[in-house]
Amino acid sequence: MEIHKDHNYPIHERIKSLINQMTLKEKVGQLNQKMYGWDAYRKTEYGYELTRAFKEQVANFDSMGALYGLFRADPWSNVNFSNGINVEDSAIVTNMIQTYLKENTRLGIPVLFSEECPHGHQALDSTIFPTHIGSGASWNPELQQKVSQQVADELQARGGHLGLVSTLDIVRDPRWGRTEECFSEDPYLSSKMTEAVVRGMQGEKEDTPKVLAVLKHFAAQGAGVGGHNSGPALIGKRELREIFLPPMKAGVQSGVLACMAAYNEIDGVPCHANHHLLSKILRQEWNYKGIVMADGTALDRLLSLTGDKELAAAYGLKAGVDLSLWDDVYLGIEAGVESGKIEEQLVDQAVSRVLYLKFKLRLFDDIPTKNEEKALTVIRNNNAIETNLEMARQSIVLVENKNKLLPIRNEIKKIAVIGPNADNIYNLLGDYTPPQRRENVVTILDGIKSIVGKNTDVLYAKGCGIRGNDKSEFAAAKKIAKEADIVVLALGGSSAREFGMEFENNGAVKDFNETEMDCGENVDVANLELGGVQQELMKEISSTGTPIISVLIQGRPYSIPMITQYCDAILIGWYPGQQGGRAIAEVLFGDVNPNGKLPVSVPRSSMQLPVYYNYKDSGAKEDYFDMSGKALYPFGHGLSYTSFTYRFLSEENETITFKELQNSKQVKISVEVANIGDKDGYEVVQLYIKDVEATVTQRNKELKGFQKVWLNANETKTVTFTLGFEELAIWDIKMNFEVEPGLVKLMVGGSSNTVIEKDLIIKDRLHH
Amino acid sequence: MEIHKDHNYPIHERIKSLINQMTLKEKVGQLNQKMYGWDAYRKTEYGYELTRAFKEQVANFDSMGALYGLFRADPWSNVNFSNGINVEDSAIVTNMIQTYLKENTRLGIPVLFSEECPHGHQALDSTIFPTHIGSGASWNPELQQKVSQQVADELQARGGHLGLVSTLDIVRDPRWGRTEECFSEDPYLSSKMTEAVVRGMQGEKEDTPKVLAVLKHFAAQGAGVGGHNSGPALIGKRELREIFLPPMKAGVQSGVLACMAAYNEIDGVPCHANHHLLSKILRQEWNYKGIVMADGTALDRLLSLTGDKELAAAYGLKAGVDLSLWDDVYLGIEAGVESGKIEEQLVDQAVSRVLYLKFKLRLFDDIPTKNEEKALTVIRNNNAIETNLEMARQSIVLVENKNKLLPIRNEIKKIAVIGPNADNIYNLLGDYTPPQRRENVVTILDGIKSIVGKNTDVLYAKGCGIRGNDKSEFAAAKKIAKEADIVVLALGGSSAREFGMEFENNGAVKDFNETEMDCGENVDVANLELGGVQQELMKEISSTGTPIISVLIQGRPYSIPMITQYCDAILIGWYPGQQGGRAIAEVLFGDVNPNGKLPVSVPRSSMQLPVYYNYKDSGAKEDYFDMSGKALYPFGHGLSYTSFTYRFLSEENETITFKELQNSKQVKISVEVANIGDKDGYEVVQLYIKDVEATVTQRNKELKGFQKVWLNANETKTVTFTLGFEELAIWDIKMNFEVEPGLVKLMVGGSSNTVIEKDLIIKDRLHH
Repeated sequence: MEIHKDHNYPIHERIKSLINQMTLKEKVGQLNQKMYGWDAYRKTEYGYELTRAFKEQVANFDSMGALYGLFRADPWSNVNFSNGINVEDSAIVTNMIQTYLKENTRLGIPVLFSEECPHGHQALDSTIFPTHIGSGASWNPELQQKVSQQVADELQARGGHLGLVSTLDIVRDPRWGRTEECFSEDPYLSSKMTEAVVRGMQGEKEDTPKVLAVLKHFAAQGAGVGGHNSGPALIGKRELREIFLPPMKAGVQSGVLACMAAYNEIDGVPCHANHHLLSKILRQEWNYKGIVMADGTALDRLLSLTGDKELAAAYGLKAGVDLSLWDDVYLGIEAGVESGKIEEQLVDQAVSRVLYLKFKLRLFDDIPTKNEEKALTVIRNNNAIETNLEMARQSIVLVENKNKLLPIRNEIKKIAVIGPNADNIYNLLGDYTPPQRRENVVTILDGIKSIVGKNTDVLYAKGCGIRGNDKSEFAAAKKIAKEADIVVLALGGSSAREFGMEFENNGAVKDFNETEMDCGENVDVANLELGGVQQELMKEISSTGTPIISVLIQGRPYSIPMITQYCDAILIGWYPGQQGGRAIAEVLFGDVNPNGKLPVSVPRSSMQLPVYYNYKDSGAKEDYFDMSGKALYPFGHGLSYTSFTYRFLSEENETITFKELQNSKQVKISVEVANIGDKDGYEVVQLYIKDVEATVTQRNKELKGFQKVWLNANETKTVTFTLGFEELAIWDIKMNFEVEPGLVKLMVGGSSNTVIEKDLIIKDRLHH
Repeated sequence: MEIHKDHNYPIHERIKSLINQMTLKEKVGQLNQKMYGWDAYRKTEYGYELTRAFKEQVANFDSMGALYGLFRADPWSNVNFSNGINVEDSAIVTNMIQTYLKENTRLGIPVLFSEECPHGHQALDSTIFPTHIGSGASWNPELQQKVSQQVADELQARGGHLGLVSTLDIVRDPRWGRTEECFSEDPYLSSKMTEAVVRGMQGEKEDTPKVLAVLKHFAAQGAGVGGHNSGPALIGKRELREIFLPPMKAGVQSGVLACMAAYNEIDGVPCHANHHLLSKILRQEWNYKGIVMADGTALDRLLSLTGDKELAAAYGLKAGVDLSLWDDVYLGIEAGVESGKIEEQLVDQAVSRVLYLKFKLRLFDDIPTKNEEKALTVIRNNNAIETNLEMARQSIVLVENKNKLLPIRNEIKKIAVIGPNADNIYNLLGDYTPPQRRENVVTILDGIKSIVGKNTDVLYAKGCGIRGNDKSEFAAAKKIAKEADIVVLALGGSSAREFGMEFENNGAVKDFNETEMDCGENVDVANLELGGVQQELMKEISSTGTPIISVLIQGRPYSIPMITQYCDAILIGWYPGQQGGRAIAEVLFGDVNPNGKLPVSVPRSSMQLPVYYNYKDSGAKEDYFDMSGKALYPFGHGLSYTSFTYRFLSEENETITFKELQNSKQVKISVEVANIGDKDGYEVVQLYIKDVEATVTQRNKELKGFQKVWLNANETKTVTFTLGFEELAIWDIKMNFEVEPGLVKLMVGGSSNTVIEKDLIIKDRLHH
């Protein structure tokens, strides 16, 4: 048996042996992921066949490195239930492709199937979970791990390998349409969720990952100026380190083996040409062993620097980009090597990384032996539905509840359910969503109907759209509001793409004027107020005098000072996924005690941006003369139907020495949390710190620990946090990651508006 | 004679000799500028006397390094015509202070008088010019040089030495209240104006500067996040180099000997503790020989890092801050040296720099021999008034002129002059303005009245305030608008401080709720729309059907899409200074052909910020789905009563070699400009470039040359620009300032929306 086919050899020897056999053309083939996967097959009366386009792609390089989006189904790919791959046929198609490669290429190297998995696999009939801004609001990494495990199980059952998932983007400007893909505005919370995604997708056994997470986007895409998609990040190295790099560092420490470079530049250097980022920090400093995948056509954008395809390919390879995505630039590698612009050694390095993944995934050992029956038992099974429902429940944030309007009392006779997001399945699901079967999605109206008692009437009117100016349904909405005892008004945004829309060649939305979209990739917004006539609808409904509960279905925080005037209770549901309507109904009626916390500050207006809790405390004037500089609702905020109190177990200051921290010792901080209300429920206990003696400016507050704990009514629990070198180190004046002896303030509470604090003293050699 | 008193010795020997004689206490005295100058004297029936507070300050260190604001008169200092220093007494008081120091300190070292001169000396009866956002709009550095020369003459005649003047701040976010102090959003235009200020204030003879300009603020204050005053600059090194450092580099090359550090931090490091900025770049790289002055109490803000006064002083000295301003921290230097936290050598270095300025200004040679009569003949003399009027004329920008509504025809019978800025003297003058005598300021109403023929009636109504909600004067305004043939509606903002307001300890505005201020230091704004009920007033007036000319008096660009709907002509007058009303009237009636150009982009809304012409071209989506990403009026835009056409003298591409550029050769680009209208006038010919083959992302356009030329009707002139190494070099991938061979696009026109373009090819050794 050839060495590379023999699993008794260590991987590096198998790689070496294989590369030694490869022609330059075959190598270049391993770095290419040019094709849209949905163009590789055709569904016929009799089954599936591989297209001429696919075969030509394979023939071009006598190989294929990776195939993107074989299962992708959505308006861009124009794949739907009629022409897409059914669950039960999934492994048949992946096996067919692997077999083709085995039989029709010289070396028979299997292909990697890479698939979009931002909140579920973007394939027909997959489980579609809340988008990340929602799962971020759960503050529950353990639950996220279960979610990611299910996503991976579904992907693997179909024969997929790489799941593209946004975990690295940090929201700093919610005008950005991809805010919905971010876990939060905070590097620590995002890091914990990133770890959960990696563990969930790859499984706990590092040697045999289930599938591989491709974390995106590396790095600083959330720093895009003005919230413009792919906007330049003008930030400095310290801002980059403090805010944008921690999630990827956490991902690497959790064993991730793939990431995607970001479209944006950082201080003049595009990420795809950024050797410092992709090689020096990622590989040398963090010891990352995986691949860097390009973002879609991003390598082609390097042409605006070089004006020359081969030189652009050289930039990408030198920087450390291993695998292309749809671009033409990496097709030019062969010519680049021949013309001397590219060293072949750089090509070998990238190929060896791609092959490393294939060996890690046992593609040379197990392919094509994918169990063709498995998908039916895995995809959207009961366990998936239950996990999805639980994540939806935990992602809902109750931001306002005046006069304890919620939960809705059982004796209510008539509920009016109104609004553009009350009964629309796609609006609940966010961008990157496949076509749905109606029966698989629970809308808010569905949820309420299923939960109310027999004696309660549920009335419904749409009222208006997300963006349009049509008020013709105002009257009907007002009428039922008047009749009802209470109104549930579902407003917000939409990232629902429609068939027939136009797209850029990277799938981003081009022309959305005819749709209801106001969020999603390339749908950046200047004005953060609710769109269309939604605010007017709110006013009209409010004039009836019936109490209003607002439910906001959204991919970004809208600016809602006006909404807070007209209603007593506000629930933020984000894009809650297929079970979202059920979860929202459970919260409305008190079956679930709300327990989500804001993963992002809610601004008063886009005029006051940026707004985030962890601003630099350097003597700036915080407020504008005409508007507060603070958020309307702060990061970490979220109400419950019960209430909690906090105290430190010991009131004494904490101490630790610099030397102890260097030796991996940690400070333990114990906090007693008491549920003093009469309902059981979760609380998210949050620990923030501020280093008050430092060589560089520190932030007002930095999250460094959180725990979601269940407390029965009248129960008290002790929560213990630990702070070690990693949490206490700062990027000091010399740009070293170092602990500086001195005073650190510790602050704890149920939101970033903390309620108790004390000091930690880090002693150096001179202290006693 | 002692060496330091003998001008036959070179300065460095005089300094050395003097320092050798000084005690540590005396040295620390030279670094201190603790006192508010207005507390140093008292005006009595019989003249002026020095206060006990002043004498104690001198006694503390048996010396005084500098005295800030002896002449400052304004609401903060509470100095006005009754208790301030008259023009004719000015040199008497400065002589009195110098004599006191000579006679009552051991070494008799003269003091430096430092004074605010942002747009004229902030002293009673000085000439008050347009604020810099207005002089920036003149695009006329020669004229700015004359302005600065007059400011310096006035300062010198009173006995002053250091004129504090904002030239380094670049507007990147007009929410910032100090936008009015910036020349522009562009580093090149700001650099040219900075050079003019330095040459104007110091005089052409480098050996004997008239006075010294203290350029502020170094650096990147305009990058403050969110437009918050002193907000942290999160920017990277390349953004810093490209946008914020060029004005100071230009200042150093023009011989400036003083600058002020900025309040803000840059990527975590406060400027006052920034050795890289103040020592490595400024002194080692640029070979700057002058002092760095602290901003007011800024050194005290370092306590938030160190928690310790002496350590904070050490940070400041190490970074390269030589002279304090009002802070307590530098009072602790003596104790710091004694405790070993500060090396005395650092103190000596700072002292030698302060003394260098005193020797340069010949303080040891000519003091106290200030001519006590001179001020009366210099301050606000006819030449000053004429220069002031000319700068006001050239600063006015005509941004809109539909149907050629302007200039106003002479046969007009009735003009209604309306608006909060039509007849208010302080609103014309900006922040940092001393009390005025009514007769020295020409309001818009004054100007119009003085210019119209006998047969034209001028009606006036205020209409409303800048910020208030009072509409009681709407009716009167509407009435005269109805009667009139044309309305001049003067709207905008105000930076007019009022006596009785509250201030921070650095003079920044604290509580301004009772005033009309919506701009100025610490008056940052979230919403860039015109304040109060001004927009409603516009609507009301418009309903009369009388054509409206809007005149915007403002320290920042407001977002005025609504204004453009209701009127045909819009003049932006900025804060035009004491002669502003006259200049505006001249433009309205066509005595002056408008020739100002926008020094800053006019945004549509603060929701679309940031908006500037020189954005990075890196594939970002430019527009929001609900709003254009572009400015309403672009940088460089400004209409004339005539029109101009452009063509290159030669249509051929330009070429130069890398080697020639290294050898100081320059490319010459000649452009023919023709006045094809029937009015004589100025045009500002603007050259922009874009490097299209570069190792790092380039900006869409960068201004690299401009010339303001006078063209009679039907006249054609040739304008020649030169581009050399300095203009063509970029901060390359290795952060070297280097020219990269390849293609550069050249674009020329009368605004940043250029009309002609061709290529420049920079050849390297390999090209022919």
